[in-house]
Amino acid sequence: MTTPDDATHQAPETGLSRRALLGLGGGIAAVAAAAGFGAARGTAAAAAPSAAPQPGTFAFTGAHQAGVVTPAQDRLYLAAFDVTTDSREELVALLRRWTTIAARLTQGLPAGPLGPASGPYDAPPDDTGEAADLPPAGLTLTFGFGRSLFVGTPGPDGTPGTDRFGLADRLPGGLVVLPHFSADDLDPARSDGDLVVQACADDPQVAVHAIRNLSRAAFGAATIRWTQLGYGRTSSTTTAQRTPRNLFGFKDGTANVKAEEEDALAAHVWVPADAADADAADGVDSAWLTGGTYLVARRIRMTIETWDRTSLREQETLVGRTKGEGAPLSGGTEHSEPDFTATGRGGAPLIAANSHVRLAHPDQNDGVRMLRRGYNFTDGNDALGRLDAGLFFLAFVRDPRTHFIPMQSRLSAQDGLMEYLEHTGSGLFAVPRGVPDGALVLGADGTPATTDDSPFVGQDLFA
Amino acid sequence: MTTPDDATHQAPETGLSRRALLGLGGGIAAVAAAAGFGAARGTAAAAAPSAAPQPGTFAFTGAHQAGVVTPAQDRLYLAAFDVTTDSREELVALLRRWTTIAARLTQGLPAGPLGPASGPYDAPPDDTGEAADLPPAGLTLTFGFGRSLFVGTPGPDGTPGTDRFGLADRLPGGLVVLPHFSADDLDPARSDGDLVVQACADDPQVAVHAIRNLSRAAFGAATIRWTQLGYGRTSSTTTAQRTPRNLFGFKDGTANVKAEEEDALAAHVWVPADAADADAADGVDSAWLTGGTYLVARRIRMTIETWDRTSLREQETLVGRTKGEGAPLSGGTEHSEPDFTATGRGGAPLIAANSHVRLAHPDQNDGVRMLRRGYNFTDGNDALGRLDAGLFFLAFVRDPRTHFIPMQSRLSAQDGLMEYLEHTGSGLFAVPRGVPDGALVLGADGTPATTDDSPFVGQDLFA
Repeated sequence: MTTPDDATHQAPETGLSRRALLGLGGGIAAVAAAAGFGAARGTAAAAAPSAAPQPGTFAFTGAHQAGVVTPAQDRLYLAAFDVTTDSREELVALLRRWTTIAARLTQGLPAGPLGPASGPYDAPPDDTGEAADLPPAGLTLTFGFGRSLFVGTPGPDGTPGTDRFGLADRLPGGLVVLPHFSADDLDPARSDGDLVVQACADDPQVAVHAIRNLSRAAFGAATIRWTQLGYGRTSSTTTAQRTPRNLFGFKDGTANVKAEEEDALAAHVWVPADAADADAADGVDSAWLTGGTYLVARRIRMTIETWDRTSLREQETLVGRTKGEGAPLSGGTEHSEPDFTATGRGGAPLIAANSHVRLAHPDQNDGVRMLRRGYNFTDGNDALGRLDAGLFFLAFVRDPRTHFIPMQSRLSAQDGLMEYLEHTGSGLFAVPRGVPDGALVLGADGTPATTDDSPFVGQDLFA
Repeated sequence: MTTPDDATHQAPETGLSRRALLGLGGGIAAVAAAAGFGAARGTAAAAAPSAAPQPGTFAFTGAHQAGVVTPAQDRLYLAAFDVTTDSREELVALLRRWTTIAARLTQGLPAGPLGPASGPYDAPPDDTGEAADLPPAGLTLTFGFGRSLFVGTPGPDGTPGTDRFGLADRLPGGLVVLPHFSADDLDPARSDGDLVVQACADDPQVAVHAIRNLSRAAFGAATIRWTQLGYGRTSSTTTAQRTPRNLFGFKDGTANVKAEEEDALAAHVWVPADAADADAADGVDSAWLTGGTYLVARRIRMTIETWDRTSLREQETLVGRTKGEGAPLSGGTEHSEPDFTATGRGGAPLIAANSHVRLAHPDQNDGVRMLRRGYNFTDGNDALGRLDAGLFFLAFVRDPRTHFIPMQSRLSAQDGLMEYLEHTGSGLFAVPRGVPDGALVLGADGTPATTDDSPFVGQDLFA
């Protein structure tokens, strides 16, 4: 039996575990400081010269939330929540708790003490424990708000929803009701939600653990509406990442907006200040979302078995790229620019008019680009034995009215791939900017703690 | 932003990918040879001195199937199939195709050629492609046969099933109908099946890709009945592996049978020759299973939310171990032997009478041990927002009549943990011995190929 390569196999067991962190005593504060909690990073480094940055962590605080331009982790667990309280105070208290727990979990700390050495023995542990020996695995937690949080859910007869939290005049213009697209067969039980949390990590157990502990902290204030596990990333968000493949077997996201493209991020991903100016003309104060973004989530089931019986020629024609290299059918290599004018025998375009690469290209979409961050999913099978599998599409955009709806309208009507696709779930969320560096409240042990004054994600929405 | 640790984050991108392998030309044969295909390993190494063992692979051939004592990989995808043909020849042809494809996939090769450089352009590619750039990730594929393959499925009125393939007199004694256990609420759509394939790998996309391609090769002969994705291993199968945690947050499988314990494997896991002798007395020829094993699969849903509200004291009392270290409540460390006679204040046993560790201990079960290989799962949520999550229990045993049914009867009746458990799916499968080293037929390019004479997993059942 060949011994597996250590670097490949042992990865989840390398790195500093949560347990090791706890055992370090003073190390907790040092790590927290090095990660940017409560102090400017340079100062912290000077104060704790022996503290190495915690491997496998991304800072929770910053101008933007982590989990957008962060190098796309391998695994996803995403949960949408319904808020069950009508109390604005309880909603704010939930967001405070979530912020503290997220700041802890993303730095490799447990949600709270695990046991009797540090907590009461006759109470439940503050952390559920199943990630206690695992490294941080690059966990990011990204929070967003659904339209129903602002204006409630309309009744089936069209009666308006209820503004439970006094937020109706804060509803940003982009948080619209998405129109019906041709390939939609949406399941309400897999769609919408008042709140969303995207957990990304390189270990799925770390992502699921995070959602479980946040869900637990929501007891009495919010319950899970739907969740989605994604096991393979289908996008790269940095130029250093290899382009991954979707379940059609094709490379996906070659033309994605990348973290290094600051101008493109400003133009296509982050909500600009002038969006609030436009909303102000409609009597809405959406300045709280400046510097944030919108998350479009679409559960796209693929008819895998049908696709697998089509010829390679048909597959490549529909995508507009080669399957192996991912090169445009007009020639070159993966990152060559497609030449939509190139023709072959009989004058037919080498890249077909109904190919995905043509219809989704910025040249065909008023120059619009997205930052995609989707994942492959497989949720068992249907009664006919067909895999319930596909792409859980996630995209971050500055405004879905310009950056999602037009393109999706075109694709759903014209893209030849749509024959193999069915949209079965949908969500749109406003993703507020990040909690500023240095804003978190630290407890006696130097780790993030929740108080009545703790900052929280989305705080400016409630100001 | 802290840069994540490369060893942790880049693991899925390290190692030799399938695409790189294909590009190596002669490297394919060298790798195949080094992995034990078609030649004794020593000879192959001598013949191809430049061939390094393919990192991250386990040999497919051998006395036993891989995926039992193989160091437990991090992720699982398991599929049970219904055979849809009544033809014994078509069933055998399926097993031949599966054997060849499994031999290829486990060595990091695609199921077959991907595209026009090596295959027809107007036919579907032989491999679906989504793992083309991924390393082998330690993939193992383990095949088993359900009782219904031998004797069909009884009707609801108790009428006997049909022996479609002339296998009724080969039904091994251990392949029984499991009795109803107290905590059972079994869903037929998550239970049983004629065939099972367990795919384990360190990358879930590699495991799902394998099942998808095997399912595709089954077209017209078998369809998927149910599948289960497992994202975190809950057992160690070698002494070098860290003990993982289940979703109760406790270490699991501390007392598991390990690959290094050859005597224990012979006593508890591999089917001995005298099992066939006993079956022969009943007029059954089960010698084909000697050296194989039985796989017990149980989908155990945990009432996570209720568990999370119990005190640490209650949790530890029910398990009989500490949550942090995993030490028996009688003292010591994780691997200390529990002292069931130790008493505390008032003479009460330190390890409670209804604790899991006591009821499952070999001393309480006629010395019986299992090789467990389970995984944590999370399959969305129910209508109340509760996670549909738990433990997908997998155990390999020499005879379920002695090594599973008695213990599960005791646990389901007495174990205090059962209050938090519900068995929602169940399967029992006979796992034949391995395809012998050197038996595979190699094609012109030196990789495994299917012919009318190809050996196949379970071949002796049909001899």
